[in-house]
Amino acid sequence: MAIRTDLAVELFRDLDSHDPALAGIEWKEEKGGILPVERVTVKSDEAAALLGKARGRYLTAETGRLWMDERGVFKQKVFAFRDLLRPFLHGVSHRGGAVLVAGLGNRAITADAVGPAAVKNLVVTRHIKEQAPLVFEDLGLGEVCAVTPGVLGETGIESGDAVRSLASLIRPRLVIVIDALAAREIRRLVRTVQISDTGLSPGAGVGNRRPEITEKTVGAPVISLGIPTVTDAATLTADAARRFGQPAPDEEALRKSLSEDGLNYFVTPKETDQIIRFMGAFVGYALNLALNERLSYEDMLSLIG
Amino acid sequence: MAIRTDLAVELFRDLDSHDPALAGIEWKEEKGGILPVERVTVKSDEAAALLGKARGRYLTAETGRLWMDERGVFKQKVFAFRDLLRPFLHGVSHRGGAVLVAGLGNRAITADAVGPAAVKNLVVTRHIKEQAPLVFEDLGLGEVCAVTPGVLGETGIESGDAVRSLASLIRPRLVIVIDALAAREIRRLVRTVQISDTGLSPGAGVGNRRPEITEKTVGAPVISLGIPTVTDAATLTADAARRFGQPAPDEEALRKSLSEDGLNYFVTPKETDQIIRFMGAFVGYALNLALNERLSYEDMLSLIG
Amino acid sequence: MAIRTDLAVELFRDLDSHDPALAGIEWKEEKGGILPVERVTVKSDEAAALLGKARGRYLTAETGRLWMDERGVFKQKVFAFRDLLRPFLHGVSHRGGAVLVAGLGNRAITADAVGPAAVKNLVVTRHIKEQAPLVFEDLGLGEVCAVTPGVLGETGIESGDAVRSLASLIRPRLVIVIDALAAREIRRLVRTVQISDTGLSPGAGVGNRRPEITEKTVGAPVISLGIPTVTDAATLTADAARRFGQPAPDEEALRKSLSEDGLNYFVTPKETDQIIRFMGAFVGYALNLALNERLSYEDMLSLIG
Amino acid sequence: MAIRTDLAVELFRDLDSHDPALAGIEWKEEKGGILPVERVTVKSDEAAALLGKARGRYLTAETGRLWMDERGVFKQKVFAFRDLLRPFLHGVSHRGGAVLVAGLGNRAITADAVGPAAVKNLVVTRHIKEQAPLVFEDLGLGEVCAVTPGVLGETGIESGDAVRSLASLIRPRLVIVIDALAAREIRRLVRTVQISDTGLSPGAGVGNRRPEITEKTVGAPVISLGIPTVTDAATLTADAARRFGQPAPDEEALRKSLSEDGLNYFVTPKETDQIIRFMGAFVGYALNLALNERLSYEDMLSLIG
Repeated sequence: MAIRTDLAVELFRDLDSHDPALAGIEWKEEKGGILPVERVTVKSDEAAALLGKARGRYLTAETGRLWMDERGVFKQKVFAFRDLLRPFLHGVSHRGGAVLVAGLGNRAITADAVGPAAVKNLVVTRHIKEQAPLVFEDLGLGEVCAVTPGVLGETGIESGDAVRSLASLIRPRLVIVIDALAAREIRRLVRTVQISDTGLSPGAGVGNRRPEITEKTVGAPVISLGIPTVTDAATLTADAARRFGQPAPDEEALRKSLSEDGLNYFVTPKETDQIIRFMGAFVGYALNLALNERLSYEDMLSLIG
Repeated sequence: MAIRTDLAVELFRDLDSHDPALAGIEWKEEKGGILPVERVTVKSDEAAALLGKARGRYLTAETGRLWMDERGVFKQKVFAFRDLLRPFLHGVSHRGGAVLVAGLGNRAITADAVGPAAVKNLVVTRHIKEQAPLVFEDLGLGEVCAVTPGVLGETGIESGDAVRSLASLIRPRLVIVIDALAAREIRRLVRTVQISDTGLSPGAGVGNRRPEITEKTVGAPVISLGIPTVTDAATLTADAARRFGQPAPDEEALRKSLSEDGLNYFVTPKETDQIIRFMGAFVGYALNLALNERLSYEDMLSLIG
Repeated sequence: MAIRTDLAVELFRDLDSHDPALAGIEWKEEKGGILPVERVTVKSDEAAALLGKARGRYLTAETGRLWMDERGVFKQKVFAFRDLLRPFLHGVSHRGGAVLVAGLGNRAITADAVGPAAVKNLVVTRHIKEQAPLVFEDLGLGEVCAVTPGVLGETGIESGDAVRSLASLIRPRLVIVIDALAAREIRRLVRTVQISDTGLSPGAGVGNRRPEITEKTVGAPVISLGIPTVTDAATLTADAARRFGQPAPDEEALRKSLSEDGLNYFVTPKETDQIIRFMGAFVGYALNLALNERLSYEDMLSLIG
Repeated sequence: MAIRTDLAVELFRDLDSHDPALAGIEWKEEKGGILPVERVTVKSDEAAALLGKARGRYLTAETGRLWMDERGVFKQKVFAFRDLLRPFLHGVSHRGGAVLVAGLGNRAITADAVGPAAVKNLVVTRHIKEQAPLVFEDLGLGEVCAVTPGVLGETGIESGDAVRSLASLIRPRLVIVIDALAAREIRRLVRTVQISDTGLSPGAGVGNRRPEITEKTVGAPVISLGIPTVTDAATLTADAARRFGQPAPDEEALRKSLSEDGLNYFVTPKETDQIIRFMGAFVGYALNLALNERLSYEDMLSLIG
């Protein structure tokens, strides 16, 4: 059965509780903070096969409606997310070495452009290190570079291949990929960020298989940040019915029926322009603070311009 | 019972067939052409009350997925839509007099910006008539001017009031308003244009009451062109279930439940940027050809730039 | 002789010092502050004829390169500009009454779009007063509404006429128009804002005569904010030669010669996208603080979003 | 003496006619066609040193004001430019093999974004060849892929390095780079395209030295298309004075003087948004027709969308 989601926590929730492979999956919830968190850890190959997700850690943070937050609250959430990010960064902000951030997705489709939107808010520093090493040292900056490789239909080049070829040039210590995901539950749509240490298969959530961006392909650990920005009509229908306590329709059959009529739209909230702008800033800002230990929030804003 | 739609044809389909007021509504369907058409005519006040729509004519044209059409097919559909438009224009292209076209909606929300997108594709000529009357006469142009008044939240001014104040200055022979609508059936979303001769209440489809743009308020006949670009999660769910032959959930209760959790998103297809661009061009082009009798398609494209 | 500038201070600098009408012009300079200021006051009709500018006050503030300022400096300059603005606002923030802000210019030409860019950064409140009068009172907000009427070529309607028709609807206590200007001296280009209490003739700086926006036409005092964003090739050449201590070429003859070859471009700095964004924010922010007495900088940023 | 231009023809015009190395440079002019052409061929190392340009061919086509052309004329110019392009393409449209097109420049600065604007108008096909080889064969398409690597300040990665790393992945038969240039003569600004077979040093025109994109670095012949979109204030002044028959000011001294005051702006025509859109389409369309032998103009427009 195909559940249309990229979120490990949603896949986990749907598993049959009697499967013995479940023992290889750990789930924890941390409520109470400004960003409620769920953590799923996949510890065995059997569990990975069961879940349909690679072995590794998946953290899901609930951001709420960032685009409606007051500035002060938004800033608090950015710092909270920075704190969630740090344990995934392999100490890179302390030890140095370049970080390559890849903002995946199609710039021409707003709902898909949360990766490029995040990169736009990134403080990029690698060239400063090369051009002005003393200044760089003095400011205590991390070494960050970025790419927005676009999508296959625009470029004729798989984004995974583009990132891999850049990585072979730059030899980063860490790769961070940011991508739009598909969600299954309405309540997670544009209100969630997933962090994982398992790398990414771009486009996997919307039904395409594409070259992986993983430690195996890029030669460095890969952290992925995924933001659910779309869901398809069949998924939304099934989820709304479930939420409402009604018998869920057969989601796959519904999807097939809608698709035959060209109607299984992927949809995004009407305010997607504003939402993507805020989610891009949220992710970009938190990365800046996590990757540049001594950078203040205000200085970061000045540097982005 | 509130059905969340701005389309007369969708409201009509939902009426109880035993109500005597139904006699005041005429419905006709014209299949076979490149743009299948349904016409609803509301002929009595009782029928208007029953339908929840003013007395007058409502034409719904099915455009299909314009953004996927080949250029030749798109052009054919533009001409077909021009032919549907003409009988609504009160002979204005023959007799002269200014036409004021108002592209309603929020430019900052792509899904809401189909009105401004159409205006961007309009050949505006009123100033040419004033500055170069002989050229104007010679080209056989209509006299067209346009406004994109924005929305209340951006301007602090009701768009209806803005259009009314401009109309009192320009004293147009005809006012045409273009607006994004909410649809109820997935199959009509971004694939339909409704023409009506009853004027418009901006924002009515998404639950707000706002000043009318009608002959009474602007002093000239008002034609409205509505394009369904959004639907809410509850509506989409109910329609998908119905299409699938399942018992429809109680739509109002579902809406209420989702809204309480802040989850009754208005959604739009993921590709909304591209879709709105094409639908804006479609409506703008057809208006250009309808309002400027002697303008060729190629010359029109040159004039838009 | 036609000097191509909209800035009163530049016109003044060029006057022959022996003309007796000069007695009707007062000029003062205030250096030392974060925004150096020059004030020109035109006090007689003879002086107005000599200068080619209406009787009234003209304040020119030097902003420096706002787009390169640190955030803290930018904020200081915003507050300084608010203080310069206040004496022009006729006490409107104390006594209440609606303010209509018009952002003139062509949104499709970035260098011309500083008016719309400023409006985008405006806290618009008129509808809040109508919808939630107690909240409005409590927040101590001013009553602000805004319009971006576009340009004649886009709309077929003179922007002056559009503002006038809205003013007849709203009956504001004060009208503020914001427009891009032409400058004569390179050193003022995109580094200056002119405030005047004489109203505005849109497009006057680039050689077109257009309907005035003055107290006479809109029925309320008119404050205009002008930002020089373009200069023509002939002007730039003459100014650069002068700055360099070389004999200035005959500017009019040079302009004529270039124009005959279609080469007298109006030019704007290469970084115009970023510059206009910052200048729009600068003007919009300062207006917000001047028109809403109790609004803090941080709250203002939240409200703009 | 440093002349601030990227155009070989402008450098050539300025050479002292008595230098013996001039024998290594050939210059030809072809007037009369819809696109007047000048060809400069640099045939010896001495000539290359004298000119400050690598050995090879430089063709400069005068496009006129593309953004003001009627559609028919624009189309004719596209075909004329395709014909000029073909001899530079190493027969790649006949023999097959991937072409990598790189649109250089900063997307956030319109005047610099003519490369990305051209890529946006490109028919990208490499993935079609992989996914649907029979369709690809049948349509007679060339194999085209594209990249818009951004600029160092955005990415921390030299665009030359990014193109090189992609080339090592794709192993193209030909690389085409498109970039904005600086011009010296006003009459060439935004009215000229230079084709050369010598590769490109991005940013060279505005005073930065950057990694080359040449056959040596990317392993395939490199064709570069350069469009002058900016000029600096000193250059413009000197050129205008010269055109006007006045003694040219000492350009370098003027530049130095302006720069010291932070005033040596690079400027671009006020209408740069529209101009770049048209020049991007012009270059993109001509490349499409040159690289896809059997593609019609209309089908190309459909494919771009």
